[in-house]
Amino acid sequence: MKTIPVAEVFGPTIQGEGYLAGRPTYFLRVGGCDFSCLWCDSAHAVLADQVSKLPRLTADMILEQLIALAATQSGPKWLTISGGNPALYELGEVVSGWKEWATAGQVAVETQGSKWKDWLVDVDMLTVSPKPPSSGMTNSDDFRLFMARADAFSAPVTLKVVVFDEVDYEFARKVHRQYNAVPFYLSCGTAMGGLSGLWVPSPLHQAAVGSPVIDSDYSLLDRYRWLAETAMHDPLMADVAVLPQLHVLAWGHVRGV
Amino acid sequence: MKTIPVAEVFGPTIQGEGYLAGRPTYFLRVGGCDFSCLWCDSAHAVLADQVSKLPRLTADMILEQLIALAATQSGPKWLTISGGNPALYELGEVVSGWKEWATAGQVAVETQGSKWKDWLVDVDMLTVSPKPPSSGMTNSDDFRLFMARADAFSAPVTLKVVVFDEVDYEFARKVHRQYNAVPFYLSCGTAMGGLSGLWVPSPLHQAAVGSPVIDSDYSLLDRYRWLAETAMHDPLMADVAVLPQLHVLAWGHVRGV
Repeated sequence: MKTIPVAEVFGPTIQGEGYLAGRPTYFLRVGGCDFSCLWCDSAHAVLADQVSKLPRLTADMILEQLIALAATQSGPKWLTISGGNPALYELGEVVSGWKEWATAGQVAVETQGSKWKDWLVDVDMLTVSPKPPSSGMTNSDDFRLFMARADAFSAPVTLKVVVFDEVDYEFARKVHRQYNAVPFYLSCGTAMGGLSGLWVPSPLHQAAVGSPVIDSDYSLLDRYRWLAETAMHDPLMADVAVLPQLHVLAWGHVRGV
Repeated sequence: MKTIPVAEVFGPTIQGEGYLAGRPTYFLRVGGCDFSCLWCDSAHAVLADQVSKLPRLTADMILEQLIALAATQSGPKWLTISGGNPALYELGEVVSGWKEWATAGQVAVETQGSKWKDWLVDVDMLTVSPKPPSSGMTNSDDFRLFMARADAFSAPVTLKVVVFDEVDYEFARKVHRQYNAVPFYLSCGTAMGGLSGLWVPSPLHQAAVGSPVIDSDYSLLDRYRWLAETAMHDPLMADVAVLPQLHVLAWGHVRGV
């Protein structure tokens, strides 16, 4: 039986970003990622030595944990599957199991779009988040294949780009220009600073060679103000939504919320 | 020729709340209101002695100001009309003028739902915000007539309720239960505290008799966390969005943003 490394199963909480921003949801965070973004805020689900220590669960075991949460703390109909990269695994049984158990349950998936899996077409919303230059990823263009596949299946898709600086913003513009019919979310990068608001290098960043790519003098709300003021004067971005990470504003970078 | 008291014409900015949260928009704030909510954050558009001093403009003059803004700072397609209560006035020419001038321009209106005007059916999104008990308004049930009228015209409607405390939250639940097919936004009350985060009584509040209805010891983000944690454990609120006032987070209670 196939097993999946699981970093976190938690909720209810509020989705902090993108299409479902502000909406109650449960979360499944799988471990393992084919990317290693410098500012990753979920290093515990990405770094190989940490992922190797995660419990490996079957779809049934994951559902059991979700149902245990939902049965005692009834609330959201949404389950958000994030990572790491959920598209590394076969999660179709988790999706169908949740939708059935939660009665009209809905599933959202977050992925950078580097890998496709056919179970993704059964999901109610795919948030594809191509990684901008500040991530240090050079294979971030692969999401275009994902978008073509999603389009072929008429899967519901939104795009979300995290922006830390002007170079990232230009990347976001290019993505939105190419997929201008796809709902688009600009998200300000917050990394590990939490409520203190100041950038703290992630473990991935600390391990990387070279100087920091991100100016540490800006708080989360400073970043949000800058991103909002940049986008609102940009005719190309007239129809996007610019959002902070609401969960970070509310709870900081604490796991399990 | 009919004239309208205008408190502010500004933009581009980011809509901080509700359906368009995070989206670039221009704003028209009309003066004059049939309500006087204790925590009103736009007293300059509500208090009679201040409204009487506002310039009174025709629809053409308002459009001229909007177009002057949009021509030099091109950006948003959205125009948000707020107040005060826009439904006190005939604004149909502003709506059609903006939609025409901005090429595929869109118009959102915010109102408490106490008054109906037929021009509202030409708007792309009506945000109806029934006022909860902490507002001190005893006629806040009138929005049900507005909802019936909007429904008869198939006008696009969302509901937004500002919540300061538990009593307000119960009011919000009741509204959502009655209109469970209408997209619903829970917004945490922030009043005049701005970035300092602490409640500062509004001029309307200061003029009111009696003790403050709102505990002043909570910051904006404290309020958001409380509201999020309350709603996310509430099965009835499983499908709502809980949002802070993004514009207050970004810029505080400064006019013209």
